[in-house]
Amino acid sequence: MPDAKLMQVLRIHAGRLVGDGLPLPDVQAAESRLQSWEEWFDFWAARGAAYEALGDDALAAGHRLTAGRLFWFGSMAYHYAQFLWWQDPERKTSGQREKVHLYDRAAPLLRPPARRFAVPVNGMEVPGFLRLPEGPGPHPCVILLGGLESTKEESLLFEELCLERGLATCAFDGPGQGEFMVQSPLRPDFERFTSAVVDFLLDEPAIAGDRIGVLGRSLGGYYAARSAASDERLRACGVWGAFFDLSFFDDLSPSAAAGFAYVAGYPDPAAARDFLQRSIDLSDVAAQLRCPTYVLHGGADDLIPVAQVDRLRDALPSDADVVWDIPPEGNHCCHNLHHLVRPRMADWLVDRLTS
Amino acid sequence: MPDAKLMQVLRIHAGRLVGDGLPLPDVQAAESRLQSWEEWFDFWAARGAAYEALGDDALAAGHRLTAGRLFWFGSMAYHYAQFLWWQDPERKTSGQREKVHLYDRAAPLLRPPARRFAVPVNGMEVPGFLRLPEGPGPHPCVILLGGLESTKEESLLFEELCLERGLATCAFDGPGQGEFMVQSPLRPDFERFTSAVVDFLLDEPAIAGDRIGVLGRSLGGYYAARSAASDERLRACGVWGAFFDLSFFDDLSPSAAAGFAYVAGYPDPAAARDFLQRSIDLSDVAAQLRCPTYVLHGGADDLIPVAQVDRLRDALPSDADVVWDIPPEGNHCCHNLHHLVRPRMADWLVDRLTS
Repeated sequence: MPDAKLMQVLRIHAGRLVGDGLPLPDVQAAESRLQSWEEWFDFWAARGAAYEALGDDALAAGHRLTAGRLFWFGSMAYHYAQFLWWQDPERKTSGQREKVHLYDRAAPLLRPPARRFAVPVNGMEVPGFLRLPEGPGPHPCVILLGGLESTKEESLLFEELCLERGLATCAFDGPGQGEFMVQSPLRPDFERFTSAVVDFLLDEPAIAGDRIGVLGRSLGGYYAARSAASDERLRACGVWGAFFDLSFFDDLSPSAAAGFAYVAGYPDPAAARDFLQRSIDLSDVAAQLRCPTYVLHGGADDLIPVAQVDRLRDALPSDADVVWDIPPEGNHCCHNLHHLVRPRMADWLVDRLTS
Repeated sequence: MPDAKLMQVLRIHAGRLVGDGLPLPDVQAAESRLQSWEEWFDFWAARGAAYEALGDDALAAGHRLTAGRLFWFGSMAYHYAQFLWWQDPERKTSGQREKVHLYDRAAPLLRPPARRFAVPVNGMEVPGFLRLPEGPGPHPCVILLGGLESTKEESLLFEELCLERGLATCAFDGPGQGEFMVQSPLRPDFERFTSAVVDFLLDEPAIAGDRIGVLGRSLGGYYAARSAASDERLRACGVWGAFFDLSFFDDLSPSAAAGFAYVAGYPDPAAARDFLQRSIDLSDVAAQLRCPTYVLHGGADDLIPVAQVDRLRDALPSDADVVWDIPPEGNHCCHNLHHLVRPRMADWLVDRLTS
């Protein structure tokens, strides 16, 4: 019988793991074989290494599409190895590194390929990937933001929903996220990094500069709203998880609180509390969010309280153009409804950015 | 606590349901909500109806790709409603009918679209779907065969593995399968129907007539080997589940035995036994199987005994060009390894049919 932490992660996150692309057989193996959360990292890291070896075999045989998918499975396996592994920064960092390495190997083999870019901001370099749909450009484009514990490598399946609908995708890691964490922990001005990426896209001939949107998930929902409110070049905003502020900080699970402290670069939640509550608050810009906005939030989200939806609604301009999509049975980010809500958001983005 | 039959179906088939495209959240809902096998049909039929309604909404909004996927989810939900439902022919037939109806609605919305065809054979009409990859033809093509309880609608995800690798796909229902069951129960000469479909493909300008292969799963593995041994126009053969004969008929589970009797048009397994053992036997043609062949079989298959692999091996020509892929941990058709074995078979087909 798995221990409580492991049961909790599997219960909360199974829809997410599979929705984000981890093969179900691996998730089932984790469920049936692991006894304790302590085994989690090693299990997934071993899967990651196995996928890299299989990807090498496929590449050697000239099976590029298969190799790309296998390297990406490996990248996801390492991502989920380090997932929530706040207590061991050294291994967490090693998982991030392997995730990035395997995504880099997958990137040119994907169809369409993912092109790595680096955007300079104040001496730092923001890393991301651009993917273009088929056909002649310039293409509309959506910037994709991760959250507390999701990164640019994890958005691949959502990217493919966008790409097959004619929308380019641009996923990057900002402060406190993924491989950018070593350059910068969480900051109160995430929107500066999004805007730098918009600058980059405006120089990109394949992208239609007047049809750029942004979408972020979980804490990224906050970053997306903040970015769109701050930069009017963003013409549509997807809030995949309403996140207005950290007024619920004291109600966070110990794991989530540890995660926020970790990405903020603080030793523990108590030390990080003030900084985080000051840094994550949409009050100062919410009234400026005027582009078409889509808010998806699970009515049964037990990570971000549904009261955050009301805080967001109350702070937006009264004439804001917002679709509120709050399925009562949806869990965190509606990952348990991933096959329904993700195409729906992609369609909404396409409608807003191509009409 | 679900009853034994329900537990058994979920245990054996979870990898298959998701591997074939049923959304995991639906499979999880079946696991958590159903108490008894008696509830199975209604649960999935309700999902099917719900997906059709969602598909209608998407279509009305102009979201064709989304609508196509939703209609196909609905088709799959009806397919799994009637899955193994031998005891109630009336409802089983209604599930088949709804499956076909929803796949027909999905077909033109898929990318690439699936084009329905009907091939005349002795006054009957063999129904199938042809899908073409992108780019200029003529394209190599694989004919896809279902088995005892899989049909042309269920191969969509495997088709997409082929299509993205440049291989056209042609899935049809033969005797005893899907919508063709009302025209003909199981017959000893399945290969005649495959050959009629080859005739059809040879008249199709988009298809390269000298690069046609065949692949069948489960009982379809038998049909594929039988077809390839009997028609030298088939240049590659995928046996997804080695199935040589029904020498293990007396060891079948009651459900599987009932299924074989059902598709053969007999009232019960005892009455069907002789006909089935005479009709499903590769002995007479195995020595003629000379095209490149790929045999995938789960070493832990508890539906088709692994001894069938040996029977097949012993009966093939000594110089047969065969890849034997028998993962020890693989269950029936290696559905528990679907993310690994399916791309591998698709790559093999592409290599054999395009070199």
